[in-house]
Amino acid sequence: MPQDLYKVTLGEDQIPTHWYNIVADLPTPLAPPLNPATDEPLQPSDLAAIFPDNLIEQEMSAERWIEIPAAVREIYRLWRPSPLYRAYRLEQALGTTARIYYKYEGASPVGSHKANSSVPQAYFNQLAGRTRLTTETGAGQWGAALAFAAENFGLTCDIWQVRSSFESKPYRAAQMAVFGGKAYSSPSEVTAVGRKLRQEFPDTPGSLGMAISEAVEVAAEDPNASYSLGSVLNHVLLHQTIIGLEALAQFAAFEEPQVDYLFACAGGGSNLGGIAFPFLRENFEGRQQVKITACESHAAPSLTQGEFRYDYGDTAGMTPKLKMYTLGAGFVPDPVHAGGLRYHGMAPLVSHCYHEGHLDAIAIKQREAFEAGVLFARAEGIIPASESNHAIAGALRQVRLATERGESPVILIGVSGSGQLDLPAYTDFLSGHMVDA
Amino acid sequence: MPQDLYKVTLGEDQIPTHWYNIVADLPTPLAPPLNPATDEPLQPSDLAAIFPDNLIEQEMSAERWIEIPAAVREIYRLWRPSPLYRAYRLEQALGTTARIYYKYEGASPVGSHKANSSVPQAYFNQLAGRTRLTTETGAGQWGAALAFAAENFGLTCDIWQVRSSFESKPYRAAQMAVFGGKAYSSPSEVTAVGRKLRQEFPDTPGSLGMAISEAVEVAAEDPNASYSLGSVLNHVLLHQTIIGLEALAQFAAFEEPQVDYLFACAGGGSNLGGIAFPFLRENFEGRQQVKITACESHAAPSLTQGEFRYDYGDTAGMTPKLKMYTLGAGFVPDPVHAGGLRYHGMAPLVSHCYHEGHLDAIAIKQREAFEAGVLFARAEGIIPASESNHAIAGALRQVRLATERGESPVILIGVSGSGQLDLPAYTDFLSGHMVDA
Repeated sequence: MPQDLYKVTLGEDQIPTHWYNIVADLPTPLAPPLNPATDEPLQPSDLAAIFPDNLIEQEMSAERWIEIPAAVREIYRLWRPSPLYRAYRLEQALGTTARIYYKYEGASPVGSHKANSSVPQAYFNQLAGRTRLTTETGAGQWGAALAFAAENFGLTCDIWQVRSSFESKPYRAAQMAVFGGKAYSSPSEVTAVGRKLRQEFPDTPGSLGMAISEAVEVAAEDPNASYSLGSVLNHVLLHQTIIGLEALAQFAAFEEPQVDYLFACAGGGSNLGGIAFPFLRENFEGRQQVKITACESHAAPSLTQGEFRYDYGDTAGMTPKLKMYTLGAGFVPDPVHAGGLRYHGMAPLVSHCYHEGHLDAIAIKQREAFEAGVLFARAEGIIPASESNHAIAGALRQVRLATERGESPVILIGVSGSGQLDLPAYTDFLSGHMVDA
Repeated sequence: MPQDLYKVTLGEDQIPTHWYNIVADLPTPLAPPLNPATDEPLQPSDLAAIFPDNLIEQEMSAERWIEIPAAVREIYRLWRPSPLYRAYRLEQALGTTARIYYKYEGASPVGSHKANSSVPQAYFNQLAGRTRLTTETGAGQWGAALAFAAENFGLTCDIWQVRSSFESKPYRAAQMAVFGGKAYSSPSEVTAVGRKLRQEFPDTPGSLGMAISEAVEVAAEDPNASYSLGSVLNHVLLHQTIIGLEALAQFAAFEEPQVDYLFACAGGGSNLGGIAFPFLRENFEGRQQVKITACESHAAPSLTQGEFRYDYGDTAGMTPKLKMYTLGAGFVPDPVHAGGLRYHGMAPLVSHCYHEGHLDAIAIKQREAFEAGVLFARAEGIIPASESNHAIAGALRQVRLATERGESPVILIGVSGSGQLDLPAYTDFLSGHMVDA
């Protein structure tokens, strides 16, 4: 295949048949989640109130390869394999010697990578006989993805969306509604924990931690319902590894055997883990030496400024305790335009890999992120999601360094989503009024 | 290639090398445009104030194949070839015997087919030494596409957007701004014709005809500026034929030699002409017998209820007179959610083909359109543009007829764009408040 291709798409028959579970290859063992009541390692039965058995099994699995069910692959075919682009035009715009590639997840039904996990989660829940899913969402990418997936498997879907996003982003609730999902502004009046939070903090902009508490409460009380999480947990990162697995095959098609740098945004960690873990395996096996950098929002810098300790996944302390980098379960981020990058914690798998030195992390302020996003859009034609702008900004730091040094490293950017529904944030940036936080 | 593929994408090397000019194959000659001052057939020099010579030449050309410049193909590679999908999931949802395909233009940088013509228009203007483009836009698809294209060739871009859309769709102006374009609410204070219209009709929601008058006025007064039109004219439809040419190659890859029905939405006619003319050539040459149906909005039914006569392209009578189906240059449509399907006229080429019986037309009310769009989104995962919903609704009429008869025709739908920025219209529909107009 010629080297000057803009994009490698791959055929539907090249959609990976298995997800990659990095737990099997970790040189040091992952700290187990703890039962919040006993502080003992979590047993599968502890999760049965909110998750179906088949997903609990995935969550706790140490199998290296987990088969993607045919019914899931069938829906993946609607948009997968996602394209891997060589960013020739961005390279020209920057006048760089670096070779820039990006894997683009924004062409999925809901405009982000989130559908990679929502589809299998809905499938396994249907298989287990559940008829209803509950979840939280921040900017709305995950909520829309779960509504889409639930609809495909005949499940109903209730979504608690962080209040500040619910109010400022009406397009997202509309998107969820098109796919049959119902969105609530969180904290809401329909849960006990929501009512309590509204009383205690009447003016709160909400947080992912609060929204998770609400969705978990509803799932725990309804035997037909499961809770679905869009990031953080092992099985979510597992599903997202399809991104990195496809990218490896696409680099082979580009005849580009070595990636030098990989930049991906990290909020809860599913996008970062999804694109990076298959490359980390390349590192573990000695085939490549990819330097992986998690790009987080300066407004929620869990990796770069948080503590590595056990903490709750939600505000009300209803979830298991997870060993992770955390800013504290009560953390409420400033309402910056960082989209989904505003979680107080970080996936235990990503936290573990960061702690063990397998990947690096940087925190990016939003003005630098959007400056990179506008530059990217004007060169490549794709307006990236707010979250993805952080990865692009991180990569551009490396690109400029390479240009100064006259080097030509291969740099991969994970562009996790489309910014079509983040356009008000771009307006804020272009007007010069964006706070530099 | 297996028959059960969801999509055929084609490689970048299969982007067509030439556009198809149907003028060369029309059995009866097209009526020429007239100089509005003399009512004599238009001379190329009559257009020199607002278009560069190279585009005037294309506008008047009778050559069958016109080469796509390398610089244009290079930008096309960012998103082309666009995918052709077999809508298996929609077929299942409908329980139909029909075989449904759709060509999807929504993955372009701006979410619609419009970039297919904005890119060559910007290229040819740059080649001719122009530094500024002016244009009109309705819902904003064309304005965003021209801003994107202008930016790629280093041109500035001023866009007059129909007031009702400018006010109700702030995301579109933001999108134009990301690509460096400047949007004005039309009628505006910055043109003489705009000021006159504002005085005469202070509460007007605006119209494409008014916005065209403003953009033409500015282009005519600035020797460095050209006017760009997003539809109607021959050269615009010429550029859009890349859609149908790709689709023909993709049907071959699907091993589907005959298309029985083709449905595409029609406002000014560029999407309809673009996808349909290469199939019309198949009909002219006796290779296929495709029944082509233009789906227009019931709120601007130029083909089904207009008159076939000479009329102006704009409200102020500044453009040449075109022989077309028209509702009258002063027509102001109700502010329905039909997006770009609200023009008073119809491309002379489409009008001619309709008048000669080469294609059919139907008018669709918006509730039927959005009902079809929601059904499509839930089955295929893609939320279609408001305009595209009219084509889907038209096709579903044919699909249901085929199901009743137990027939299995091949039905192609032109899905001209993504509805991500039309989500408020979906909210209106889902709430049950949408007017049935």
